[in-house]
Amino acid sequence: MRLAVIAGDGIGPEVVAEGLKVLREVAPDVETTPYDLGALRWQRTGELLPDTVLDELRQHDAILLGAIGDPSVPPGILERGLLLRLRFELDHHVNLRPARLFDGVRSPLADPGPIDMLCVREGTEGPYVGNGGVLRKDTPHEVATEVSLNTAFGVERVVRYAFERALTRPRRHLTLIHKTNVLTHAGSLWSRTVEEVASEFPEVTVAYQHVDAAAMFFITDPGRYDVIVTDNLFGDIVTDVAAAVTGGIGLAASGNLDVSGTNPSMFEPVHGSAPDIAGQGTADPTATVLSVGLLLEHLGRTDQAKKVNAAVAFDLSTREPQATVRTTEVGDRLAALASG
Amino acid sequence: MRLAVIAGDGIGPEVVAEGLKVLREVAPDVETTPYDLGALRWQRTGELLPDTVLDELRQHDAILLGAIGDPSVPPGILERGLLLRLRFELDHHVNLRPARLFDGVRSPLADPGPIDMLCVREGTEGPYVGNGGVLRKDTPHEVATEVSLNTAFGVERVVRYAFERALTRPRRHLTLIHKTNVLTHAGSLWSRTVEEVASEFPEVTVAYQHVDAAAMFFITDPGRYDVIVTDNLFGDIVTDVAAAVTGGIGLAASGNLDVSGTNPSMFEPVHGSAPDIAGQGTADPTATVLSVGLLLEHLGRTDQAKKVNAAVAFDLSTREPQATVRTTEVGDRLAALASG
Ligand SMILES: CC(C)[C@H](C(=O)O)[C@@H](O)C(=O)O
Ligand SMILES: CC(C)[C@H](C(=O)O)[C@@H](O)C(=O)O
Repeated sequence: MRLAVIAGDGIGPEVVAEGLKVLREVAPDVETTPYDLGALRWQRTGELLPDTVLDELRQHDAILLGAIGDPSVPPGILERGLLLRLRFELDHHVNLRPARLFDGVRSPLADPGPIDMLCVREGTEGPYVGNGGVLRKDTPHEVATEVSLNTAFGVERVVRYAFERALTRPRRHLTLIHKTNVLTHAGSLWSRTVEEVASEFPEVTVAYQHVDAAAMFFITDPGRYDVIVTDNLFGDIVTDVAAAVTGGIGLAASGNLDVSGTNPSMFEPVHGSAPDIAGQGTADPTATVLSVGLLLEHLGRTDQAKKVNAAVAFDLSTREPQATVRTTEVGDRLAALASG
Repeated sequence: MRLAVIAGDGIGPEVVAEGLKVLREVAPDVETTPYDLGALRWQRTGELLPDTVLDELRQHDAILLGAIGDPSVPPGILERGLLLRLRFELDHHVNLRPARLFDGVRSPLADPGPIDMLCVREGTEGPYVGNGGVLRKDTPHEVATEVSLNTAFGVERVVRYAFERALTRPRRHLTLIHKTNVLTHAGSLWSRTVEEVASEFPEVTVAYQHVDAAAMFFITDPGRYDVIVTDNLFGDIVTDVAAAVTGGIGLAASGNLDVSGTNPSMFEPVHGSAPDIAGQGTADPTATVLSVGLLLEHLGRTDQAKKVNAAVAFDLSTREPQATVRTTEVGDRLAALASG
């Protein structure tokens, strides 16, 4: 397995080191190539993602990414020029984000009940396309636009993927989240697509919710969700709500998938670079380790993925509540458990 | 006080009846004109909001609205043609949504702490402008767009209003919520505007959060927020999260304000028409009564507003937890308390 590693900024290198520790334990054949991308490189050289690097990345089976972002860099530069550029160039149309409340993990909810959802967020369209502009900047007559682009091609493939995932799960339930009553054009495309694809999956039950209502039900009744499919921006927001109710961003894993297999998929914790705690050795690497689990699953290494996930589940069930995390200790424990 | 009343659909008429009951108790001079708008009128006549009705509405001091929406009507028709049309035609640029955890109210959070935030949602711009389209509908090459429009004029007035509100509150803190790292054009306009207006309000401290992070902090640390300012769509979502953590949509009030006073402002509970419980007399009218409180405050009837709010606060502190709501009983109690 040839793995490209982008450790990135802030706590990125710390959590990636632990993710690799666990990965090497279950998949000793992994060959890693580190790529120096992120805030430091941009500050040193002005480079974000040189085309030659992108070409090299394409030669790998998968990418593991830590975190991108630094407060010293103006908003959007690293996100649009590096992180989103990777997702778009590598056609990561499925942004896969499971949210499961593990045994032993404290939810901020008083009565969470069992939570086990799989959010399928579209990754290459919607309001994320960068298709906006500005007129008369810095005048009282300034107008700024952002365009959400949605195509039948782009919506259909992610909806189809969500149905396929729903079919493999015990509850076989899919919820579309959108705002069809206001964003009527995009909403209609999403609704019609779900309806059409649904006819090919008669075993899967389908529900729809407006994004505002869903954000509320994620808090008052998260157990009702199984698989979720939604657009890029709504998915960004609701997966953070899902992460919050399942114990926080320290546990939220994600995969950016090119389902066609043409390009390597990229796996990253949902959390950011957390500059406030960088370098202190207190970042929780669990989300990165769970992202490694998604990576192994994606590459068809099901047994190795199971080992990683079981290690995390066991460790979480025995962690001291509120204990301070030591990044390397968590990694050591998870690596030992995964190897055993 | 000349009040236009749009009871609307579903539970709208039930909760509005109780809102008026309380209003008449504290403001006996109120003269109400009912307007028959909503799903039934549309089904009967095809009319949503005739221009003559809009003209008549303009002659009032304020509007009280129950709820608009019915599952038998295709998504968007009533929302775009009636509810949003009212907000846009009457220039309701401030959508004001307080979220306070009242004593005696059970939050779904295990440890909510005190919550008292005031969300100032922009109401006439952003992705709500209806400025999208569709190309090659119902073909594999369909493209659907939604355009978010943001103007210096529109952003500045709502940001200014938010600062003014922050200045009157003990904590004097304002948080801008946006997604400046992805929606860079609109995000830049919002950030620069907050920065500029902030210089006129040196007493107010300012914070910024991405909408995804904010949705999470609303759950893990809601007490950190005081006044929030955000765009139309983000405001739609985060105010439902805020409502959820402060005890649910049954308590969430809102005002759609034309701060200039040119047009009547409109007050409505945040909840929808809830067709599943309509006609059963079990809808909680408290959000409507709190919206009446906002209405009175907006019209400068501070003492009357205080009576309404104090009645709600007292009633909530003494309600049986989990007791089934009887709509008219709650209204009777609140009316009696407000008059006393
Ligand atoms: C950093 C940012 C561009 C990114 C996004 O909005 O997708 C992040 O919030 C995420 O969810 O992975
Ligand atoms: C019904 C809908 C158009 C409306 C909105 O999105 O603004 C509602 O969700 C609200 O928050 O008042």
